[in-house]
Amino acid sequence: MRLATVTGPAGTTAAVQDGDEWVALPAPDLSTAYAHGLLDPGAAPLPGHVPAYPVGEVVPGAVPVLPLPRPGKVVCCGLNYGEHIQETGRDLPSHPTLFAKFADTLTGPTDELALRTGVQWDWEAELAVVVGAVLHRADRATALAGIAGYTVANDLSARDWQRRTLQWFQGKAWDATTPLGPVVVTPDEVDPTAGLTVSCRIDGEEVQRDSTGTLVFDSADLLAYVSTFTTLRPGDVVLTGTPGGVGMARDPQRWLADGEVLETEVEGIGTLRNTVRLVP
Amino acid sequence: MRLATVTGPAGTTAAVQDGDEWVALPAPDLSTAYAHGLLDPGAAPLPGHVPAYPVGEVVPGAVPVLPLPRPGKVVCCGLNYGEHIQETGRDLPSHPTLFAKFADTLTGPTDELALRTGVQWDWEAELAVVVGAVLHRADRATALAGIAGYTVANDLSARDWQRRTLQWFQGKAWDATTPLGPVVVTPDEVDPTAGLTVSCRIDGEEVQRDSTGTLVFDSADLLAYVSTFTTLRPGDVVLTGTPGGVGMARDPQRWLADGEVLETEVEGIGTLRNTVRLVP
Repeated sequence: MRLATVTGPAGTTAAVQDGDEWVALPAPDLSTAYAHGLLDPGAAPLPGHVPAYPVGEVVPGAVPVLPLPRPGKVVCCGLNYGEHIQETGRDLPSHPTLFAKFADTLTGPTDELALRTGVQWDWEAELAVVVGAVLHRADRATALAGIAGYTVANDLSARDWQRRTLQWFQGKAWDATTPLGPVVVTPDEVDPTAGLTVSCRIDGEEVQRDSTGTLVFDSADLLAYVSTFTTLRPGDVVLTGTPGGVGMARDPQRWLADGEVLETEVEGIGTLRNTVRLVP
Repeated sequence: MRLATVTGPAGTTAAVQDGDEWVALPAPDLSTAYAHGLLDPGAAPLPGHVPAYPVGEVVPGAVPVLPLPRPGKVVCCGLNYGEHIQETGRDLPSHPTLFAKFADTLTGPTDELALRTGVQWDWEAELAVVVGAVLHRADRATALAGIAGYTVANDLSARDWQRRTLQWFQGKAWDATTPLGPVVVTPDEVDPTAGLTVSCRIDGEEVQRDSTGTLVFDSADLLAYVSTFTTLRPGDVVLTGTPGGVGMARDPQRWLADGEVLETEVEGIGTLRNTVRLVP
């Protein structure tokens, strides 16, 4: 299945793709759907929910928006593409490097990116995993079974802020700077561990390309590891890290510029297409 | 005012202290109270809220619990006590070192700390600031006016996990390991910038003591800085950092042990008293 949160003329709804059309599901968005188990067969309707579209009907002119507007937790992994790490001369890590974002950090798959001018904005194309079960000290098999699906993210980073101190957080948690979407694809349709191409383009020029098959810690590894110390719940999101090719590592360094179109793609899932607007 | 979330025989409520008693406020807890502006004079009642105690009545046998069960954001600052930084030979930082926790990371002021055995658990007594307004790119004066109050936290840290990678997050975000409370004291009653003593004791032995007057970045500085990149909202929490005296810096190093009583105090606010239980 390919799931999304879509808007049509009458409002926003969770939806499932059927060919070229989107069919309404019984939830206003995928965060609500996962949190309340509304995608489960036979689930009771959400009390008080007035659907924008009748369940099972096609949403006319549906446009995917931010699929998960309110994840309880957004956990990100850095330094996770093996070939990229090895080409920089480092050893493969024994543990994933993790940091957090907020729900506010996310933005939609076609939203303009209003980025503060004078800041070094860099791109990081990533596979993102959506949690589908409560995971607490899960082993790898339990974590794997607890994956609701996969989507696409760009972990846009304010590099000068990221490097102001030892901790990356302040370069990684600017409101509405991490596009996510456009769809969540269930695990029966894609297998990132077998290898999906992750790529990033700026105005059509490819700047990143690698395969999720080279991830040091794959999706199930990351969910299991994170669940060792904090409980993951349905609708939480884990970003799996970015391959080589970021602007910071170029010579000369390159930062996103006003008007540039940033495309972030994961094979078999979809493409984010966001235009950069530098703002005061 | 001294505010808390308290439990009595009939349930949990936000409350205000009156001498030795706690008087019910019109919210089930302080997170709800701040998020919905229920402490404002003339605020409309929360739809559907069935109070455990009539507003204005004394809660019999009230016991303060976690005052803020659901902050939207918990942001923490490291390396912020000037004398401690200088005694380690470092320069004072030009920017605060920031990282995030989750609401799940918090626990109540007298809760047992169920800590995973075999992990290096260390203490970090801290002043915590509670946000009282929407702050977005706030200047210092606006941030200062947007402080709802102050409380006490212990940023318990799993040192071996914190040092597994460059990012501290995985040592800082274990569920139910950061005690917070017992009360939130409004800014008219305490002035941390003028100097409040922060101290930490283990089984009565003092291990940390410093004054919030030596903070490099005070509460208003931190709120203003964080609001540069992410919006802070009423009920959000910012931890201001810990003074010297942590177990990691001792020779030999010392970690929390089963049965130890950890007391964390900020002068004029109150004391957290949590017993350590090492669990499998």
